[in-house]
Amino acid sequence: MTRAADTTNRAVARACPVTVLGLGAMGSAIARSFLDRGHPTTVWNRTAAKADALADAGATAVPTAADAVAASPLVVVALLDGTAVEQVMTSVGTAITGRTLVNVTSGSPSQARANERWAREHGAAGYIDGNIMGHPPCMGTQNILLTFSGSGSSFAAHEGTLRELGTVTYHGEDPGAAAVEFLAQVATSYELLIGYLHTLRLLRAEGADLAGFTDRFGASLAGYPALLTSMVRAVESGKYGPDLGSLDVQAALMDDLIGHRESLGVESVRMREVKKLMDRRIADGHGHQGFSGLFELLAPQGEA
Amino acid sequence: MTRAADTTNRAVARACPVTVLGLGAMGSAIARSFLDRGHPTTVWNRTAAKADALADAGATAVPTAADAVAASPLVVVALLDGTAVEQVMTSVGTAITGRTLVNVTSGSPSQARANERWAREHGAAGYIDGNIMGHPPCMGTQNILLTFSGSGSSFAAHEGTLRELGTVTYHGEDPGAAAVEFLAQVATSYELLIGYLHTLRLLRAEGADLAGFTDRFGASLAGYPALLTSMVRAVESGKYGPDLGSLDVQAALMDDLIGHRESLGVESVRMREVKKLMDRRIADGHGHQGFSGLFELLAPQGEA
Ligand SMILES: NC(=O)c1ccc[n+]([C@@H]2O[C@H](COP(=O)([O-])OP(=O)(O)OC[C@H]3O[C@@H](n4cnc5c(N)ncnc54)[C@H](OP(=O)(O)O)[C@@H]3O)[C@@H](O)[C@H]2O)c1
Ligand SMILES: NC(=O)c1ccc[n+]([C@@H]2O[C@H](COP(=O)([O-])OP(=O)(O)OC[C@H]3O[C@@H](n4cnc5c(N)ncnc54)[C@H](OP(=O)(O)O)[C@@H]3O)[C@@H](O)[C@H]2O)c1
Repeated sequence: MTRAADTTNRAVARACPVTVLGLGAMGSAIARSFLDRGHPTTVWNRTAAKADALADAGATAVPTAADAVAASPLVVVALLDGTAVEQVMTSVGTAITGRTLVNVTSGSPSQARANERWAREHGAAGYIDGNIMGHPPCMGTQNILLTFSGSGSSFAAHEGTLRELGTVTYHGEDPGAAAVEFLAQVATSYELLIGYLHTLRLLRAEGADLAGFTDRFGASLAGYPALLTSMVRAVESGKYGPDLGSLDVQAALMDDLIGHRESLGVESVRMREVKKLMDRRIADGHGHQGFSGLFELLAPQGEA
Repeated sequence: MTRAADTTNRAVARACPVTVLGLGAMGSAIARSFLDRGHPTTVWNRTAAKADALADAGATAVPTAADAVAASPLVVVALLDGTAVEQVMTSVGTAITGRTLVNVTSGSPSQARANERWAREHGAAGYIDGNIMGHPPCMGTQNILLTFSGSGSSFAAHEGTLRELGTVTYHGEDPGAAAVEFLAQVATSYELLIGYLHTLRLLRAEGADLAGFTDRFGASLAGYPALLTSMVRAVESGKYGPDLGSLDVQAALMDDLIGHRESLGVESVRMREVKKLMDRRIADGHGHQGFSGLFELLAPQGEA
C-alpha cells in the first residue's frame, strides 16, 4: 500500500465512531488502539472502574451496554466467553438495530452461528464473528492475528477499521468459519506447547541444558512448513509414504521414548495415546507407511 | 570453516576405511554416502541380499558382522532398535578391540550407556552414540541432523568423517546425552504432528480447507522461537507471566475447544489432559499466570 492510500484509509476510518463492550485485557487494548487511531470511542464494562483510564484517554464511558451500543454504528464485543456475551446481548436487546456487531470473544463455531441468528432477529445491520491470537499489548501491530467471518458486506464496510487492529484474514460468510480456524490454530499450538513443556521436564530430570534445547528446537521449526505441506498432500490423496520413517521403525522408537520417560517418573499419557494409534495402524497392515497415515484412525465416531 | 580447511578434512576422511552394520533404509544411505565420498566401505546385513546394490557400487560385502568389524577402524551401526544392536554386538564380541564404535540406531540414554560399557569391556578404541533425524535419501546433506555424544577423543578423531553425513552436534562425554537430546526433539515433534493431524480431522469434519490451514499454521511457526524462548525463561526463573493470556481465560477457551471437538465426534483425550492441568493450576491459585506455569505440574513423581 502506498503512503497516500494509507492516509486515505486512515481518514475514512477516523470518521467511524466505535463502541467497545468489555474492558478486560483484550477489550481495553482494542479501545485504546481505536482511540489512538482517532475514532470517537464509546466504552462499557460490567465493573465500571475499568473504564476510568480509557475515559481519561478520551473515550466516552457509559453506564449500560445498551447505551454504549446506541452510540456507534460499529460495536466490538470482547468478553470472557460465550456465556458472558449471551448475558450482555440480552441486556442490549433491540438497541442493536441497525448496528454492525463484531464479536471477538473467543468461542465455538456454534456460538458464533447462534450469535448471528440473535443479531439478525434483533435487526442488526450485520454480524461478524472474530477471534484474536496474540498478546493484548501488541494490539494495533501485525503481531496480532485476527480471523473474521460472517456478513461479507458488513466486513467490506468496516474492513479498514478492523485492519487497524492487526493482521486480518476473512474466512467467508459462514459466521462459524473464523472460530473453526481459530480453534484449529489454538489446538495445534497447545499440543506443540504442552509437548514442549513436558520435554523441558524430562530435560531437567536429565540435567540437560533447557535453553540450548529450546534454541535447537526453535531452529528446527523452520523445516516444518515443508513437512506439513507433504503431510496434508498425503492426507488429501490418501497415499501415505514413509514420511518420518516407516511406522514399524517409529513404533520401536516410541517404546524407547515412553520407557525413558517412565524411567524418570515423567508421565507419558499423550505419548502412549500416539503409540496406541501406531500399533493399531501396524495391526491393520500399514506398518510400511508413515506417520501421516494415523489421520485415518482419527475419524469422528461413525464416519468411515 | 575455510575452503582450504574443508579440503584437508575431506582428504583425511577419504583415507579412512569404514564399516557399516545394518543396511536398512538408514544404513544403506549411510554406506552409499561413505562410498560417494571415497571411503573404502565394508558392509554387512543380516539378510545378505540387501548388500548387493552396495557391492555393485563398490562396497565390500562380508558374511559376518565380526568380519565386517575387523575390516575398518571406524564401525557405524544402524539397526532397527536396541535389541538388534545387542544381538549383533554379541556376535561381534572381541572383534571390536581397537575399533571405534559409532551406534546411530535410535534408542534410549540407558541403552547408549550400556553400549558404552560393553564397548569398553570388549576393548573398543571408543564409543560414540548417535541419533539421526531426517529422511534417509537426504543423507550427506545438511537436512540430516545427527546428534552425537560419548568419547570426546574418538569424536575428534572421526569428526571429519561423521560431518560428511549431515549437520552434526556433539553433546559431550555422557554417551546418553545424544539420546536425551534426540528423544526430546522427537517427542516435541510428535506432539506437534499428532495435534496437527487431529486438527486436520476436525477441519475436514467442518468442511474447511485443509491446505489453506496448513499454509497459515506453517507460517505462524515463525513466531514460535521467540515464544519458546520466553517460556524457557519463565520456567528457569519460576516467574510465569500471562504468556498466552491468563489461565482463567485459557481454561474458558479450552472448554469451547473440547466441546467443539466432541460435538463433531472428534475425540479430545489429549486436550482434556491439558484442561485438567489448567484446572489444577487455577485451583492452586495461579489462574492469573500463563500457560508456561503448567511446567510446575509436570514434575516427576516424588520430585517437588
Ligand atoms: N528411516 C528413517 O526415516 C529414519 C529416520 C531417523 C532415524 N531412523 C533410525 O535409523 C535406524 C534404522 O532405521 P531404518 O529405517 O534403516 O530401518 P529398516 O529399514 O527397517 O532397517 C532395519 C535394519 O535392522 C536390521 N535388523 C533388525 N533386527 C535385527 C536383528 N535382530 N539382528 C540383525 N539385524 C536386525 C534389519 O536387517 P534385515 O534386513 O535382515 O531385516 C535392517 O538392516 C532406526 O533406529 C531408526 O529409528 C530412521
Ligand atoms: N488476554 C489474551 O492474551 C487473549 C489472547 C487472545 C484472545 N483472547 C480472548 O479475548 C477475550 C477477552 O479476554 P481478556 O484477556 O480480555 O479477558 P479478561 O481480562 O479476563 O476480561 C474479561 C472481560 O469479560 C467481562 N465479563 C466476564 N463475565 C461477564 C459477564 N457475565 N457479564 C459481563 N461481562 C463479563 C469482564 O468484566 P469485569 O471486568 O466486570 O469482570 C471483563 O471485561 C477472551 O475470549 C479471550 O479468549 C485473549
